[in-house]
Amino acid sequence: MAERNFSVGNTLVKLLDEKKYFSLRDVLTTMNPADIAAVFDELDESRLPLMFRLLPKELAAETFVEMEPDSQELLIRGFSDSELKEVIDELYVDDAVDVVEEMPANVVQRILAQAEPEMRKQINEILRYPEDSAGSIMTTEYVSLRPAMTVEEAILRIRRTGIDKETIYTCYVTHGHKLIGLVTVKDLLLCEDDEATIESIMQEHVIAVNTLDDKEQVAQMFSKYNFLALPVVDTEFRLVGIVTFDDAMDVMEDEATEDIEKMAAMLPSEHPYLRSSPFEIWRNRMPWLLLLMISATLTGYVITRFENALTFLPCLTAFIPMLMDTGGNSGSQASVTIIRSISLGEIEFRDILRVMWKEIRVAVLCALVLAAACFGKVMLIDHLLLGDQTVTPMVALVVSLSMAVTVCVAKLIGCTLPLLAKKIGFDPAVMASPLITTIVDFLSLLVYFRFAVAILGLHSA
Amino acid sequence: MAERNFSVGNTLVKLLDEKKYFSLRDVLTTMNPADIAAVFDELDESRLPLMFRLLPKELAAETFVEMEPDSQELLIRGFSDSELKEVIDELYVDDAVDVVEEMPANVVQRILAQAEPEMRKQINEILRYPEDSAGSIMTTEYVSLRPAMTVEEAILRIRRTGIDKETIYTCYVTHGHKLIGLVTVKDLLLCEDDEATIESIMQEHVIAVNTLDDKEQVAQMFSKYNFLALPVVDTEFRLVGIVTFDDAMDVMEDEATEDIEKMAAMLPSEHPYLRSSPFEIWRNRMPWLLLLMISATLTGYVITRFENALTFLPCLTAFIPMLMDTGGNSGSQASVTIIRSISLGEIEFRDILRVMWKEIRVAVLCALVLAAACFGKVMLIDHLLLGDQTVTPMVALVVSLSMAVTVCVAKLIGCTLPLLAKKIGFDPAVMASPLITTIVDFLSLLVYFRFAVAILGLHSA
Repeated sequence: MAERNFSVGNTLVKLLDEKKYFSLRDVLTTMNPADIAAVFDELDESRLPLMFRLLPKELAAETFVEMEPDSQELLIRGFSDSELKEVIDELYVDDAVDVVEEMPANVVQRILAQAEPEMRKQINEILRYPEDSAGSIMTTEYVSLRPAMTVEEAILRIRRTGIDKETIYTCYVTHGHKLIGLVTVKDLLLCEDDEATIESIMQEHVIAVNTLDDKEQVAQMFSKYNFLALPVVDTEFRLVGIVTFDDAMDVMEDEATEDIEKMAAMLPSEHPYLRSSPFEIWRNRMPWLLLLMISATLTGYVITRFENALTFLPCLTAFIPMLMDTGGNSGSQASVTIIRSISLGEIEFRDILRVMWKEIRVAVLCALVLAAACFGKVMLIDHLLLGDQTVTPMVALVVSLSMAVTVCVAKLIGCTLPLLAKKIGFDPAVMASPLITTIVDFLSLLVYFRFAVAILGLHSA
Repeated sequence: MAERNFSVGNTLVKLLDEKKYFSLRDVLTTMNPADIAAVFDELDESRLPLMFRLLPKELAAETFVEMEPDSQELLIRGFSDSELKEVIDELYVDDAVDVVEEMPANVVQRILAQAEPEMRKQINEILRYPEDSAGSIMTTEYVSLRPAMTVEEAILRIRRTGIDKETIYTCYVTHGHKLIGLVTVKDLLLCEDDEATIESIMQEHVIAVNTLDDKEQVAQMFSKYNFLALPVVDTEFRLVGIVTFDDAMDVMEDEATEDIEKMAAMLPSEHPYLRSSPFEIWRNRMPWLLLLMISATLTGYVITRFENALTFLPCLTAFIPMLMDTGGNSGSQASVTIIRSISLGEIEFRDILRVMWKEIRVAVLCALVLAAACFGKVMLIDHLLLGDQTVTPMVALVVSLSMAVTVCVAKLIGCTLPLLAKKIGFDPAVMASPLITTIVDFLSLLVYFRFAVAILGLHSA
């Protein structure tokens, strides 16, 4: 895809520079708005407004929506008031809200000034909802029907008003603003009796979300129920808007990215990677790096406490990385699995005992295999191959036992911490690999040295 | 949601046990198929078939599709041939394929024997496509129109044949099986001239995917273009099926889960966590744990080589975990960011120089701050607070310098490995944290001891 945009981009720029505007327009109108936007985002300040003005009105608005905020701002600043009005009039309310949210205050004022009063009112309404709520991603442009309408009347109403609606395929039936049912266009078209009332063919028991529901939960409902759209209601079940599947898809993708970033000890990014400045990326990565570095002091402290043992039997030091890494990996496997399951709504806090029981069995299986492999590895590689005579079978035993205990502890901590975090209202994703690793490092070395002292008869400092 | 299913589940079981079948059926028909399936999946063998038989035909099929494979198999084994036929006749082809793919051979034979010849043919056709291809997730039930039809004829055709189609909202225009355009039901309904031909109102330049395209790429196109459905064509642009947005959503979710699992050193899971046996989970987690454990030998070997230095200045050992962890975290931040961007189609191999230049700048910023913080931490905590007099400013310098170099190396390796993996046809997600950590561990200790030898004048073994 990107490959193709690149070459198409070059062609378009060449046509523009050669002032072949008619051909340029012809090429642009064969393209999808998302693809045009990808090309436009790469254009420089001098070419972008010129090329944008070549687009037919509707395509211009569709492309505008798909562009990056910087390019949108650039365009708006160059627009005359009437040009701006033309673009805004073509936008759906929720897309207009998305644009407004990304712009600086003076640009927002210009946009609102040019919007029709009705649209301005709706934009302001949606902007009032909290950032991650269903209300903030909904649109107020939906088709509503009255229960007493006939199928024929309903189809007529759709034909008359549908042009401005984000989707016409799911229509909502309201009575005094209360949501009482839904009909799909499929139901309407396939209904054999044109005189049937909407009330008689509508689906009751409509699944709806509240304006304040978390948008992540809303996105999950889409993937569970395969809806095209989901109605958003207030506390009295009055219909205030709808969320469409394309917005839910964006939320799903963004939330997965955010989880992945948090799991790798980063703050969530605002922009795509190639559009983020090094400073921005640095700011998102620094806090956790610093915190985890400082907290590794604890692990270092364990080593200091057992310095004597290490001086007496230096070969013990060489096994520290293996123990730490395996512990960390075991723990993050468990934590990442649980975090993802929580995100997908498959696991909740009340499953904690089931989860722990499962992880204990997995941990024991893993621990047995790893300990055996570890014993074999130490004796074969370190003792025989590398010929370190201080690596006795007893040393191998200490390392393997520590390995087994570390793996079990790591898996248990890994599966419980995210669930506990969720319970007390923290983000489970933060309890992922890096934090678990730090905790497990500390514990694994503690176990290791305790075993060394007990089994090999060494003394701590 | 799950909370609600739980209590609803209890109510339904109570009604069943009290033989209040009419009320039970009334409650079931108010529910959404996905919610009924969630309850049914928790039922035991004796209750499940009984309750399933209470569902009206269409709802039964819709519920069946949403159930877990084990429960589906249980039901099929209990079905008479005519019951089985009834359910299968109600299924969409792509859903039938999903069921067939999960069943053992003898159950598959029974299903195919009961399916109508036309459906059997289509199931077999879809089954022939490779596992992760667009062909394997498509359905063959779509509305196709001819270019010479009028709008009125097209609407009539939809009304007549639409009942069996997975979506009627996007209709495809074909000429001799070749895909030449598309019309949406919205276009048809909003068209003011009933006598207009499809050819005159259709959108040409249809974006389509090939049967063999990767399904992940297909899902990405949905989130990019906001399509309801995407046509699947063969190499000669003949229309063979469509993929609908709900299947694309499932793919998106599955692929994100798979990436996350791979990034945490696991093989992709087949079933949801709570439905996987401990043995299955163990099997997915063991290979990488074992491999990474063995490869930590390399890091251990570095330590052995510098054992003398450590014996001479034991306090150096205490900083090993901090260096290893910070290096690992820095590397995985970079690799995870790049892997996710590759998955979302934002970055490709040809961006490698841009990526490296960005990461170098981020790395230098991170390295400066971390090295400074590290120097301060070592002098304040280890030297002053813990009073270790062997921790001199020169030692702190060695640690900080090693830290800075490690962070830079880690970020560079972290950003390049996934792109290189992609280039040579490997899965970038495998190049994530755990593998990077192992490589960075090795390098960080090598740097550390080299600096120690050079600056503190220690000798290696």
